[in-house]
Amino acid sequence: MPVYLQIANAFIMSIRKGHLQAGQQLPGTRELAQILGLHRKTVVAAFNELLAQGWITMIPRKGSFVATSLPEVKALRLKKEETTAAFPDKTIFPIRAIGVDVPAWTDNRTGSKLVIDEGLPDTRLAPVTLLLREMRSLASSGVFRKYYQYGSPRGAEDLCETMAGFLHETRGLPITSDHVMITQGAQMGIFLAGSVLIQPGDHVIVGEPGYFATTHSFRQMGAVINRVPVDEQGMNVDAVEALCRRKKIRVVYVIPHHHYPTTVTLVPERRIRLLQLAAKYRFAIIEDDYDYDFHYNSNPILPLASLDHQGHVIYIGTLTKTLAPAIRVGFLVAPKNFIEAATGVRRFVDRQGDTVLEMAIARLYRNGTIARHIRKSVKVYQERRDHFASLLEQKLGDRISFRIPDGGMSIWTKFHAGLLSSIAARAAQKGLKISDGSIYNTPTRQYNSCRLGFASLDLKEQEKAIGLLASVL
Amino acid sequence: MPVYLQIANAFIMSIRKGHLQAGQQLPGTRELAQILGLHRKTVVAAFNELLAQGWITMIPRKGSFVATSLPEVKALRLKKEETTAAFPDKTIFPIRAIGVDVPAWTDNRTGSKLVIDEGLPDTRLAPVTLLLREMRSLASSGVFRKYYQYGSPRGAEDLCETMAGFLHETRGLPITSDHVMITQGAQMGIFLAGSVLIQPGDHVIVGEPGYFATTHSFRQMGAVINRVPVDEQGMNVDAVEALCRRKKIRVVYVIPHHHYPTTVTLVPERRIRLLQLAAKYRFAIIEDDYDYDFHYNSNPILPLASLDHQGHVIYIGTLTKTLAPAIRVGFLVAPKNFIEAATGVRRFVDRQGDTVLEMAIARLYRNGTIARHIRKSVKVYQERRDHFASLLEQKLGDRISFRIPDGGMSIWTKFHAGLLSSIAARAAQKGLKISDGSIYNTPTRQYNSCRLGFASLDLKEQEKAIGLLASVL
Repeated sequence: MPVYLQIANAFIMSIRKGHLQAGQQLPGTRELAQILGLHRKTVVAAFNELLAQGWITMIPRKGSFVATSLPEVKALRLKKEETTAAFPDKTIFPIRAIGVDVPAWTDNRTGSKLVIDEGLPDTRLAPVTLLLREMRSLASSGVFRKYYQYGSPRGAEDLCETMAGFLHETRGLPITSDHVMITQGAQMGIFLAGSVLIQPGDHVIVGEPGYFATTHSFRQMGAVINRVPVDEQGMNVDAVEALCRRKKIRVVYVIPHHHYPTTVTLVPERRIRLLQLAAKYRFAIIEDDYDYDFHYNSNPILPLASLDHQGHVIYIGTLTKTLAPAIRVGFLVAPKNFIEAATGVRRFVDRQGDTVLEMAIARLYRNGTIARHIRKSVKVYQERRDHFASLLEQKLGDRISFRIPDGGMSIWTKFHAGLLSSIAARAAQKGLKISDGSIYNTPTRQYNSCRLGFASLDLKEQEKAIGLLASVL
Repeated sequence: MPVYLQIANAFIMSIRKGHLQAGQQLPGTRELAQILGLHRKTVVAAFNELLAQGWITMIPRKGSFVATSLPEVKALRLKKEETTAAFPDKTIFPIRAIGVDVPAWTDNRTGSKLVIDEGLPDTRLAPVTLLLREMRSLASSGVFRKYYQYGSPRGAEDLCETMAGFLHETRGLPITSDHVMITQGAQMGIFLAGSVLIQPGDHVIVGEPGYFATTHSFRQMGAVINRVPVDEQGMNVDAVEALCRRKKIRVVYVIPHHHYPTTVTLVPERRIRLLQLAAKYRFAIIEDDYDYDFHYNSNPILPLASLDHQGHVIYIGTLTKTLAPAIRVGFLVAPKNFIEAATGVRRFVDRQGDTVLEMAIARLYRNGTIARHIRKSVKVYQERRDHFASLLEQKLGDRISFRIPDGGMSIWTKFHAGLLSSIAARAAQKGLKISDGSIYNTPTRQYNSCRLGFASLDLKEQEKAIGLLASVL
């Protein structure tokens, strides 16, 4: 801390403690500099700081005085057991306990030394230093400072534009920036798309097994959930058609690449059938393509949204897997009227995102950093997938079964040697955290399976983790 | 850009253009270094980059080759008029057009050179460089890198803890970190509190005039809106009681400091009456204290939430006014069961905030940067308020009327010289943007008034802006 600030803080402390009283005159800067053995400029800077903060007043040709009206500060901190009747543990009035019964999923930074997460990126690889450098460069420019003011709930125009280009190049989406909005991760994309589409009583279709967070979110909006089986080729489209014949379906939610949780890819024939059904039965498809950039065996299959779908597809993606989960940037692609409505919803949810972060990310796209990062990560993760799969094979053998996924960051693993919940509990005792599998279960099915994430562990960490897991099986 | 990256990019360009074909052998690094007149290390670095990105493969003792499976990239960008039938302007299926009819409010970075906003901070003063420095320090530490993984939807524990201390010191709230959640600005606090409290058909009370965004948000949740007058002393509490006698009131939404839009402060007697009514009629109070830190004439009045309210008060605040609107950090304080429910809602809206940003802000609180920034801003804004008020008095005289507010960042101004909408239109032609006042109107009242923000304009800018405004009145 600079010397002048240290001096200013010492004065503030003295004022707070009452050693210096309101209205009391302070020594002159020349005198004080001599006493403290400092340059007078330093003392003047300290006094200017005190003046700027309102602790002192300066009267020309008279000197400096402790201000008479000080902001009153009570420095006392409460301990947990001292909180009063103002904030009891429970409200007197009833509240809606939304989502509190949903089990939390594993994250990657708990107390445990070692975590097999459910498929998260390795944040050690993320180009956050470059990202922060761009943010600093934006923040230090007068031209860009104004972007710290309110902006559009649709996201920074720069990033909408750049994202439209990137999605066009990598996914063949025939779009301009008007079709793009920036969200806080795919989760907000799902929330906004659901809010625009779903009225209480509307029927939606999701996969079985499927992404519990979407199911929960849509149910909160009043949707009736219909589940159709997901097999090795993705969502069963015949089952979708059978449901469409029986009732008015409003939304089909589909994860075309590396379906959550089973990691299968929706095959091209089913994609085309699904679009035909959408046209016939006039439902909206929410295509959650969170894993598109991470494909190892071959090129990924172009999204449904790249085809001639007449506006039936709402396309959702995220950078949280590409960069890091805590960098909350995702996108939603849709016809213009849909983007306007989703923007209207968002305005009253969180107003907007972090414009400067979004502009910095646009720069990382344009200077090639993100494309480079994706290529590098894909190579690293492919090696990790292969290593992890052979470890599972060698160490766990027939006590589990799994299929090597074409991409993504996890292997969907069924456990044959006992209940996953007790396996997870035994692993936790040895310092290894894995999912207990409960979030993948649905009212009709118990899977005794979980996603084992390979991307965030390097080869040594994988060996240690699978070794521990083997020891409790 | 470093030389090795320039070389790598030149190779990528050649591969993309087809000048170098899949499987083709590249010259050796030694040879290439000689041709280019560069150190061999530089060429090796370039090749390693190409390898890492997957553009080439290296075969030991044979050499480097262009990779056979390249990520296919179509570089074509569409122009706006070329978008196809995939994304028409309108969806075929009907959608809920939520919020699209709400007029947008003025922001501070439009095409106009000069903007009188509706009361925004001056982002030129914000300590964003210090904030980004803390973020960089966190990002560069291995220990903190894991915070880029998923964290709690309730916000970074560090910031919850620090915020509890800050709110206890500055506002007398008897709380610990368990009572705090971090939100994306006050807007998300309002959304979450409403989501937890309001069921379709519930009656809520808001001020007339009041904050249109809350009214809109609660109405979207199915609330029946009841308006009670707001006078010079804040919300009319007798009118609240009269409503409570007639119907079951679920929520009273109150802005105790510098009511939006009229900037009045709710007087202490009415605060106490309101708490008594809450206890008697068992309604929840949502206290939106967005402006607490910016008080000029005297100390602010302690919030309702600091009193012995038995959990009736949900307290909301924001840093978006303290730091900058685009830095989306706010807080919600409530009993524990309420915090859990609000966290449950948030998990399925945007999952969580930017953990590293939140931790950096916690550091700025702890090292005194934010307290210092608040003191400095208060001094600057007080001077700007006084200057602005005297300019209004001198230049606009009896064509307007207003009251100097005790704090906040704007002056609620009634226009007597014609319709505000046409005044705003004439000002826009001269390059000055002001609100046309439409967002303050309600179904029952037209105010012909708007908030004139003084905080984001320095004294010279104020003189220019008011001069322009005077010229069109």
